[in-house]
Amino acid sequence: MDWNPSLLESLAREYGTPLYVYDEGMIRDNFRRFHSAFQKQYEDTKTFYAYKANSNLAILHILRQEGAKADVVSEGEMRTALKVGLDPEEIIFSNNAKKKSEIREAVDSEVILNADSMDELYRIQAIAKDLDKNALVSFRVNPSIDPMTHPKIATGMKSSKFGLHIHENNAFKAYRFARDLDYITLKGLHMHIGSQIKNTKPFVEATEKLMNFASSLNEKLGITLDFIDLGGGLGIPYEEDSDALTPEDLAKATVPVFKEWTEELGYEPELWLEPGRYVLGPAGVLVTEVQSVKETPYRKFINLDAGFQTLVRPAMYDSYHGIENISSEYNEKVAYDVAGNICESGDVFAEDRKLKRTKAEDFVVIYDTGAYGFAMSSQYNSRPRPMEILLWEDSAEVIRERENWNDLYRHQRIPEDLL
Amino acid sequence: MDWNPSLLESLAREYGTPLYVYDEGMIRDNFRRFHSAFQKQYEDTKTFYAYKANSNLAILHILRQEGAKADVVSEGEMRTALKVGLDPEEIIFSNNAKKKSEIREAVDSEVILNADSMDELYRIQAIAKDLDKNALVSFRVNPSIDPMTHPKIATGMKSSKFGLHIHENNAFKAYRFARDLDYITLKGLHMHIGSQIKNTKPFVEATEKLMNFASSLNEKLGITLDFIDLGGGLGIPYEEDSDALTPEDLAKATVPVFKEWTEELGYEPELWLEPGRYVLGPAGVLVTEVQSVKETPYRKFINLDAGFQTLVRPAMYDSYHGIENISSEYNEKVAYDVAGNICESGDVFAEDRKLKRTKAEDFVVIYDTGAYGFAMSSQYNSRPRPMEILLWEDSAEVIRERENWNDLYRHQRIPEDLL
Repeated sequence: MDWNPSLLESLAREYGTPLYVYDEGMIRDNFRRFHSAFQKQYEDTKTFYAYKANSNLAILHILRQEGAKADVVSEGEMRTALKVGLDPEEIIFSNNAKKKSEIREAVDSEVILNADSMDELYRIQAIAKDLDKNALVSFRVNPSIDPMTHPKIATGMKSSKFGLHIHENNAFKAYRFARDLDYITLKGLHMHIGSQIKNTKPFVEATEKLMNFASSLNEKLGITLDFIDLGGGLGIPYEEDSDALTPEDLAKATVPVFKEWTEELGYEPELWLEPGRYVLGPAGVLVTEVQSVKETPYRKFINLDAGFQTLVRPAMYDSYHGIENISSEYNEKVAYDVAGNICESGDVFAEDRKLKRTKAEDFVVIYDTGAYGFAMSSQYNSRPRPMEILLWEDSAEVIRERENWNDLYRHQRIPEDLL
Repeated sequence: MDWNPSLLESLAREYGTPLYVYDEGMIRDNFRRFHSAFQKQYEDTKTFYAYKANSNLAILHILRQEGAKADVVSEGEMRTALKVGLDPEEIIFSNNAKKKSEIREAVDSEVILNADSMDELYRIQAIAKDLDKNALVSFRVNPSIDPMTHPKIATGMKSSKFGLHIHENNAFKAYRFARDLDYITLKGLHMHIGSQIKNTKPFVEATEKLMNFASSLNEKLGITLDFIDLGGGLGIPYEEDSDALTPEDLAKATVPVFKEWTEELGYEPELWLEPGRYVLGPAGVLVTEVQSVKETPYRKFINLDAGFQTLVRPAMYDSYHGIENISSEYNEKVAYDVAGNICESGDVFAEDRKLKRTKAEDFVVIYDTGAYGFAMSSQYNSRPRPMEILLWEDSAEVIRERENWNDLYRHQRIPEDLL
């Protein structure tokens, strides 16, 4: 791990814990590496950063500087992307349950709407007509691929809630219907098969299916597309020595398939990609303080001042994260259960994990928490959400202040008869 | 279910969705029923509402009016209880990882600190000494009981992170040590074996163990206790016709055991209890709007404008909640997967659930969401958190306004070089 423990410890002392720390250099490097792996092989590549992984404004500004476009999933994220300075055509809005108000805002701003169902297409068309504006539309299609990842984040399987199935022609009928509608401009084709995928096979299979489908759209319906979006889902190695896929591996496996099919297509659409975790995951850590160490007759516990309200992945997905005591004076390693501070037994970051012998007031770092860390945090148990820090080499800037007690009471009103 | 569908529908139209709605009458009834079931059998009973279940200030004021004391798990909740007007001796602060700042605040405010480990006891004593104030202390003990509930919310099993084990005398040694310390006043004894428990057996066994332990404290150490706290954990019937335990069942099973042992003890401690879910769970619903209905070759989906950022229980614990379409014109029932609006496949509230035939813009209610609903909500996918409404008969008051776009950006700072 490329983190400087003494720097993290000094940040913890200065700013308190729990504390999310991100490294600007790593974010830039990860984005560049991902984008160039694909662009080297296919010039007309655009990389859309998945805002849901981490939508801190400072981080989004870094990625805008790097040329990242925006993959957004809500009106909130769309507004954020516009606020960060992206052009509407650099924003794709995907979601399975868009509200009318969200669609209206997207059509009005000329953002690309990635439609998920026929119901949604009707809704988009009615709103576009009402605004007398063309809606820029792609469809999310479901290639029915098993991405071999955790079921909660596998999104392109046949039973998933997302997209229109290529199978049994649902997607084909949607394009045929949309082609002839006023106020709808068909721009592209989109899939996203899941998250934290560690094998090229499902990506290659899905790319094949998608390109084959694009080809039938051209052949049978005369539809040509500005872009074809292969989505995101590249896994990162949360466990040391685990079999990780690199962007180069993924590009080498999928881009030749994509290029081969463009010859079949007879035109060259833009290749769009949507990484999130790959860019941000390893570029962030969560720094916590040990509040107590407890030996029971059965286990040894380390109790941290963070819990699943701070980082929900281990409790929700049984996710593995590297964990290290950065301030222990001991060399000897001891197996601990690393517990959070939420009053639920499931609030444990790791079981039976070997760390340097630990005592209260040591600092413990949880690695690879830049993506889906703060983004999924809550105030559960009435705990204000943590601070976020951005590092550039050794210099630190606060990019989100710690919440305070008033943030727990914001927007509340007490009826007079209860006072 | 005792909810008025046309009232819920009119609230949804007036205030928008998603919307949490609570019923003041039900909250009062549930609290009274629980408290009186125990107090009828043992006069000296105090009921502590578990703030973590739902800490909306209006709801806390209702419960204060009913005489509820406060079971809190963080400095935030402790401050809230004091703000609501409780006296410090009506507040018990339990947690496995209390920060120094939290302990300092508790000792200073004279709130009861329910200690979880020896490490924590040392910390409490050092802070009390520093403040030159006596800390009021109980210990949470672990009776090693399997509560036969979901593992994530089973807290009194031998492998749980909570409390000092009665087994192998860890808890006994803690009391012996604490008895002789300056600045520590031993007030009581506490356990909490888990949540959503539907069987009296684990409660009875745990009560036996706890009372037996209290008796040995008196006999061998001469320690008498002001209170013995049996915790919470009474399950509610999320599924219709499921085997629910009533407060009367629980009181009838446990209080005789408690009373029998007080004879053994030779004194009569206060009996403390900590319900949360029982009081709030059934007294709240989540009202959502259908954004689209989608038929795939494999399943039929209803896509709601709420997701696991609004209500995490189904995604996190596979929890069952009753779900109803309150505005369908059809009588015919159809099996749907009821999906949320978060971009993850695990964001599904129910699979294969029979609802009246549904179309976009229908309103769908998710029942029994008064506890661990809003309390666990987040802004994941950049979605502002929902509004909360309190009903008194048919009259509605907003008790928390809907979050706005600015709430997504609060406390953020963008370094100048990134702009």
